[in-house]
Amino acid sequence: MLGGSAVHFALAARFFTDVRVVGPVGDDFGDDELATLDQRGVVTDDIERVNGGETFFWRGHYEYDMNVAHTDDTQLNVFGDFDPKLSDASRGAQMLFLGNIQPDLQRKVRAVCREAEFAALDSMNLWIEEERDSLVAAIGEVDCVLLNDAEIRELTGQPNLARAARSLMEMGPRVIVAKRGEYGAALFTPDEFFAIPGYLLEDVRDPTGAGDSFAGGFLGYLDSRRSAGDSVLDHAVLRQAMAYGSVLASFNVEDFGTERVQELSRDEVDQRLRDFKRITDFEAEPAPTPKV
Amino acid sequence: MLGGSAVHFALAARFFTDVRVVGPVGDDFGDDELATLDQRGVVTDDIERVNGGETFFWRGHYEYDMNVAHTDDTQLNVFGDFDPKLSDASRGAQMLFLGNIQPDLQRKVRAVCREAEFAALDSMNLWIEEERDSLVAAIGEVDCVLLNDAEIRELTGQPNLARAARSLMEMGPRVIVAKRGEYGAALFTPDEFFAIPGYLLEDVRDPTGAGDSFAGGFLGYLDSRRSAGDSVLDHAVLRQAMAYGSVLASFNVEDFGTERVQELSRDEVDQRLRDFKRITDFEAEPAPTPKV
Repeated sequence: MLGGSAVHFALAARFFTDVRVVGPVGDDFGDDELATLDQRGVVTDDIERVNGGETFFWRGHYEYDMNVAHTDDTQLNVFGDFDPKLSDASRGAQMLFLGNIQPDLQRKVRAVCREAEFAALDSMNLWIEEERDSLVAAIGEVDCVLLNDAEIRELTGQPNLARAARSLMEMGPRVIVAKRGEYGAALFTPDEFFAIPGYLLEDVRDPTGAGDSFAGGFLGYLDSRRSAGDSVLDHAVLRQAMAYGSVLASFNVEDFGTERVQELSRDEVDQRLRDFKRITDFEAEPAPTPKV
Repeated sequence: MLGGSAVHFALAARFFTDVRVVGPVGDDFGDDELATLDQRGVVTDDIERVNGGETFFWRGHYEYDMNVAHTDDTQLNVFGDFDPKLSDASRGAQMLFLGNIQPDLQRKVRAVCREAEFAALDSMNLWIEEERDSLVAAIGEVDCVLLNDAEIRELTGQPNLARAARSLMEMGPRVIVAKRGEYGAALFTPDEFFAIPGYLLEDVRDPTGAGDSFAGGFLGYLDSRRSAGDSVLDHAVLRQAMAYGSVLASFNVEDFGTERVQELSRDEVDQRLRDFKRITDFEAEPAPTPKV
């Protein structure tokens, strides 16, 4: 299936802002795959085709409740000796997402994007376990980290998520997003926190890529607010970005690969945001008068 | 520690309504334990002291993230041959909670409480695995079931929670509450669903009893609305009950046994409800104008 961190991210973020994808692909990533992105307004100029190479490959399986993924096979392939060469347009990006790949590669890209006002990264247990020092250095160079809650616990050695997020903030970032699979996501900033449940679905076909679709909705929406002159650190803006991230992730899991998100309209996205509000809303004022 | 389903439940529900506890205790449940309930307005007339008996006992351990409990030891003790004898006042209850115990005992109590307009039950994997037929019969006789999400999946053989809840509704109840530990809870009715994340805490000392405190907040609040003439099946009422249940569960886990909830005031409960609203709220209207 068409997939990969940057592809899932781009197809979600395009509803909100202009997206440029940077990364290497092999011969197996053909013109049809490129067209899927091009036709939806994603700029693919910095996708580098490596002749004779094979695209990064991940295979895993999910537990019974589809909430926990186990990696069976990771092949870096063309990422193995990739040296990112960014166009001037990509170097000038004001918002940057470093998808899940070797942390040293993330650092190289971060270093050349000097205009980025807000940079975020995703990672995974493989890098926590095998390249911890590089990952910690990469985390120190971004404003925002998106990780699964179990990975935040693993990285910080702290079983309590709120404390683990605080430890992660001490490494540098001001915004921590804990992804919790079907249970939703939580947001931590120095002063506040926020939690949102997952959108409940009767048909979940494939959770692969949901975290990247979340990141695309989250950062894409933040960038639209940044362009409009708002602060991406405003808590109300971040909260709505969390909701849009959840909405895009919920569409992602409805079908395999990028099948659902690539056919999606912005109207459907906004309608689900309203549905999501309806199924999570409650009155905070006590009624009737408290018993004495 | 003082604990047990009915005790956790009663100490949470007392903030909203009058609570009567029914159940057997052993010699190890002394005057101090009774006084803890009495002094907080919980009616203990139907707590039956069994001379020479020992109170129901549960011991377990929690996984690293304190989200999954494993049972090490369950001793029914005085529940082994308990034959519930309810006072007229208890038989006349209009709202009934059947705490987690053998389903046949739950059915006996359900049968004598003929005035109950709304009855709910909790259960656990032990009864799903060892007394499934009795449990299914008990579920068919109540209006509401509260279970962990993994138990709902186990009972119905359905990995998707929304579908599993629908299967459970086909057994009789109109209201299904899926408890999700630190991740919060979800509510299913024939027409709607609702999800709420857990209240994020930096200090979680003991999750034991959190589900019963949730049930106490949820059903206690529903009963206060019932007394005020509202329908307990109104979705806005149910949603606020879910929020109160979550609030009481969040206080429960802050200390061992009933230490925190027994010292709690209604003001603290209502203040946390407002905090909870603040940390889960987001704007549903898109801003700025969608990119075309």
